[in-house]
Amino acid sequence: MALVVQKFGGTSVGDIDRIKNVANKVKKEVEAGNKVAVVVSAMSGVTNQLVKYCNDITEDFDKREYDAVVSTGEQVTSGLLAIALQNIGVKARSYSGWQVGVKTDTAYGKARIEGIDADTLLKSMEDGVVAVVTGFQGISDEGRVTTLGRGGSDTSAVALAAALNADRCDIYTDVDGVYTTDPRIVKKAKKIDRISYEEMLEMASLGSKVLQTRSVEMAMKYGVCVRVLSSFLEDPGMGTIVCEEDEIVEKEIISGITYSRDEAKITLLEVADKPGVSATIFSFLADANINVDMIVQNISEDGKTTDLTFTVPKLELANAVDIIKSHKDVINYRDVMSAANVVKVSIVGVGMRSHVGVASTMFKSLAEKGINIQVISTSEIKVSVLIDDEYTELALRALHTAFGLDKEEE
Amino acid sequence: MALVVQKFGGTSVGDIDRIKNVANKVKKEVEAGNKVAVVVSAMSGVTNQLVKYCNDITEDFDKREYDAVVSTGEQVTSGLLAIALQNIGVKARSYSGWQVGVKTDTAYGKARIEGIDADTLLKSMEDGVVAVVTGFQGISDEGRVTTLGRGGSDTSAVALAAALNADRCDIYTDVDGVYTTDPRIVKKAKKIDRISYEEMLEMASLGSKVLQTRSVEMAMKYGVCVRVLSSFLEDPGMGTIVCEEDEIVEKEIISGITYSRDEAKITLLEVADKPGVSATIFSFLADANINVDMIVQNISEDGKTTDLTFTVPKLELANAVDIIKSHKDVINYRDVMSAANVVKVSIVGVGMRSHVGVASTMFKSLAEKGINIQVISTSEIKVSVLIDDEYTELALRALHTAFGLDKEEE
Repeated sequence: MALVVQKFGGTSVGDIDRIKNVANKVKKEVEAGNKVAVVVSAMSGVTNQLVKYCNDITEDFDKREYDAVVSTGEQVTSGLLAIALQNIGVKARSYSGWQVGVKTDTAYGKARIEGIDADTLLKSMEDGVVAVVTGFQGISDEGRVTTLGRGGSDTSAVALAAALNADRCDIYTDVDGVYTTDPRIVKKAKKIDRISYEEMLEMASLGSKVLQTRSVEMAMKYGVCVRVLSSFLEDPGMGTIVCEEDEIVEKEIISGITYSRDEAKITLLEVADKPGVSATIFSFLADANINVDMIVQNISEDGKTTDLTFTVPKLELANAVDIIKSHKDVINYRDVMSAANVVKVSIVGVGMRSHVGVASTMFKSLAEKGINIQVISTSEIKVSVLIDDEYTELALRALHTAFGLDKEEE
Repeated sequence: MALVVQKFGGTSVGDIDRIKNVANKVKKEVEAGNKVAVVVSAMSGVTNQLVKYCNDITEDFDKREYDAVVSTGEQVTSGLLAIALQNIGVKARSYSGWQVGVKTDTAYGKARIEGIDADTLLKSMEDGVVAVVTGFQGISDEGRVTTLGRGGSDTSAVALAAALNADRCDIYTDVDGVYTTDPRIVKKAKKIDRISYEEMLEMASLGSKVLQTRSVEMAMKYGVCVRVLSSFLEDPGMGTIVCEEDEIVEKEIISGITYSRDEAKITLLEVADKPGVSATIFSFLADANINVDMIVQNISEDGKTTDLTFTVPKLELANAVDIIKSHKDVINYRDVMSAANVVKVSIVGVGMRSHVGVASTMFKSLAEKGINIQVISTSEIKVSVLIDDEYTELALRALHTAFGLDKEEE
């Protein structure tokens, strides 16, 4: 008998038929003799509607009230799934975050889980009652409902799995696992059987939207074995297991290739080449809550000035340029240029640590296709390049082949 | 400085513009120097959708889960109204029933309020913060969310007014007060300035849908002065005040005339005329949760059998007839007849207590119009008759004139 946490996202519970389908999947786990806790998202579209209501009043809303509003979607789903389970003979009851002590900090709208009182849920499962818990939310020590930010239900599920010391945390979603790259673009993309937390973290933060970054961080911290699988397949198979690196036997050098179209590029020409300048620029942006990702600084030719290029979220581009222009006197540069038609393509793999020449293979593959690299950034297990977004598909396919990830022909 | 509870129903908060309109009405009370608590319903249509979700899974759902689902509509409205208030400079925060200790029994789906911890709300109002409380719901001592049944937000408002010892409880709705009869049918219907709890109770239970019956009972029990007024008028005037009888100076003999199309008639022919027979029949119906309202038993002509006529809710008619037929052997009657094309018309007024001839005036007015009375029932302050529903409008207008309720021509 295992203790299993199952999580179902918004599209998996998108209507009543799908909720009934989810109930059948839960029933299978129960009939296999397992103790089951389920975490649910809001029905797809519901949270967006609630967010829109808030924005229609004002965009400068009290985040505590926003949380009171948007947290209701999951409460609806949890009650409906409990009804659907009971209807097919499975004992079940719904729990809101506040009812099972999902304690968070007070960062309303993007709260972090600080702990979960597992006792209530363990007692419920001990009695053979499936616990259906609202994802995405908790309660602050002020006694108010908090939400974890978009995608937070994955995090709820992993936190619950950690608190319950679950054997498995199965994240059911609309894809059947994590792929070596986007299968809509690269037909030869393969499903990955096992991937390490570190790789998954890079994949998640680089644009692969299967798991929310924070949920992977939490899984890594608490050693929760997470499985990603499809809620739409009758037999979802094994999906993709996210686990410790040393639990993976067959390691590839590169596990996956990701891309993100969410970034835009800003270049400052002839900035003074002296200490503190970058700090000045980036502190203005930080004050405006704009996240800077890739940064490169050219070698100074004249020893006095240099060009500085960096990326910001595409949605913040206009805002960032405005801020830089309004501080031109302080920053001191000749001109600012920006471009939104860029894509960040990244290769990710723990194999990089022990293999040399990975980056050069990447650069060579792109050069062979005539793709110009605008910015490069690297970490221990990934290499990212910024390129013209017209080349996205071409770059993904070339790299997928170059790193030997192509699926064998059937 | 007064302490005021304001309640806004589903149509009053039906969309974002209406919620903003409600915020302005609350602001007026605040600017008048009053301490304000607001009770809100779900946006119109929302609760129906949530109920439909439950019914789409099964009609035999767990009422505790149903409550978890349908209670979310008010949570959305309370958060949105708090945002709308803050947006126009009024300090406000939302509270769910469980956050302010609206304690109920465990009759999920139709729970009764047992008490409210007023401290949190009084503290909030003391700090100049408008408390926006979810109507229609509370928390049981099992720690689960309960709902009060449809229309329960009125009851929430009155209970809150009682707990806070409020000076006024203003129920904002889509009409500007309680009328002598339905103004859509009788053009000369007048708005009633003041009406006693007893009369309002009869009016509510007899089909006038302005206030929920239980809210009036509670107002009477705790002596809460309730005011009904329109949320759609810029200046809603005084509306109708529901209060103690002795606070009403100008008393009419008849305060109002109501009608209900929700009942149907069943007649059992040649039932044995002996003790215990009625008890048998009505206990079968009670077991099936079917409410019997008007009952008449003819005088027995042969001393052995009699005819028994009574009314049941129209929705339960087929069910009630089935039950009676399936127990024909036990009940022992010759035949059963039923009719759904009936309407119950009632005259209500505390003046009846001290005036004779009220009932005969009623019967005479109807007879003059050729309207046949099928069943009669009376209480201390009302006379109800069951008539063919084709005569509804004619009967209302005739009685309205007969009892001197017609509005003077302007």
